[in-house]
Amino acid sequence: MTNTVIIVAGGRGRRMGRDIPKQFLILDGIPVIMHTLQRFYQYDNCMKIILVLPANEIFTWKNLCVEHKFTIPHQTVEGGEERFHSVKNALKLTGENEIVAIHDGVRPLVSGKTIARCFEMAEKTGAAVPVVEITESLRYFESPDRSVSVNRKNYMTVQTPQVFKSEILVAAYAQAYSENFTDDASVVEKSGHLITTVEGNRENIKITNPVDMEIAKILIEQRDFL
Amino acid sequence: MTNTVIIVAGGRGRRMGRDIPKQFLILDGIPVIMHTLQRFYQYDNCMKIILVLPANEIFTWKNLCVEHKFTIPHQTVEGGEERFHSVKNALKLTGENEIVAIHDGVRPLVSGKTIARCFEMAEKTGAAVPVVEITESLRYFESPDRSVSVNRKNYMTVQTPQVFKSEILVAAYAQAYSENFTDDASVVEKSGHLITTVEGNRENIKITNPVDMEIAKILIEQRDFL
Repeated sequence: MTNTVIIVAGGRGRRMGRDIPKQFLILDGIPVIMHTLQRFYQYDNCMKIILVLPANEIFTWKNLCVEHKFTIPHQTVEGGEERFHSVKNALKLTGENEIVAIHDGVRPLVSGKTIARCFEMAEKTGAAVPVVEITESLRYFESPDRSVSVNRKNYMTVQTPQVFKSEILVAAYAQAYSENFTDDASVVEKSGHLITTVEGNRENIKITNPVDMEIAKILIEQRDFL
Repeated sequence: MTNTVIIVAGGRGRRMGRDIPKQFLILDGIPVIMHTLQRFYQYDNCMKIILVLPANEIFTWKNLCVEHKFTIPHQTVEGGEERFHSVKNALKLTGENEIVAIHDGVRPLVSGKTIARCFEMAEKTGAAVPVVEITESLRYFESPDRSVSVNRKNYMTVQTPQVFKSEILVAAYAQAYSENFTDDASVVEKSGHLITTVEGNRENIKITNPVDMEIAKILIEQRDFL
């Protein structure tokens, strides 16, 4: 089977309060997104890598590749309106009998072990996502002013890569878009397929705001987990 | 009404992988726990501050106070078996008609605004806790190998201080201990009282592992939120 990863970097990163999209910010000498591609290339240097970028950032990206002498083979695709549409665009470049991972471009600290666990499980079950424990107490809101304590041990947060057999993923993305699709697992689940979970790695944070970027700098110095 | 805060620092911090308990690690020149006490003292310099420490750390704490010329008035109390028992010990030092906050010793970055919101709301409703949005996708586990996607917008994570009218808190802590008590709100809720929620502050992290300490160092440089 071919391994494929769709790396979604469609967002503008408005929350970072800077002009540079967060996926292009420099982390340890190179743009965040280059780390992300490296992670998957290190896991499988034959992997098909599809990078989804906003149309107006593709030129910048090509220039960054030249500037940083970045040679990992990959294809670029234009993003869509929502993440759902971006993934759907990228799926046109996938074939049959592939194991397809979808990964957030701004999660450069995914470990090789997390990637391996997801791909291995997806090959068995068709759908695997990495999860991590919740360390804080949790409340469920029945309405904005009425909440109850729930046991955090019954919940886990979901990271990426979310990995699926291609036929399952393509069928799921043939559904009409819904605002309730919070991640790829929720799209696949809606189409009737069960999702299996594997252990993620706690360092695999999503760079969403300036503090996350500072945290990523600290984490990448402790490369032993990668 | 008297404002009281019970600062719970009973934990050994085994997860930090160091000999020094995490509440005594140095942050911006002084032990973590001194920052925590300062936050409440800055909100109300007449507040009754009760610090719960493991019995074998009280001497170290007294020495640290001398070393750092720490003069904020407070009482120290020995911790118990579990957090529940530590809080129960401290409650013996509270009186009637008090508004009592319970706060994690290793949350030195609680903002004055968060403290104010909790105390003001608790005075109205009897029970208030600070909450923050969940930024990652969330799954609910029916069993270890069966989970479903849930809408993260219906959930929030709970921080401290968790603030209550003293009579409500004392009545709640008269209950028998249960492993399902994940925080003070869950204890009070079990006794039949509704909990109201207010906005916390995202920087109000719990220092649990070495990376959290690095994050705290970055956050405390940006003091504008405190």
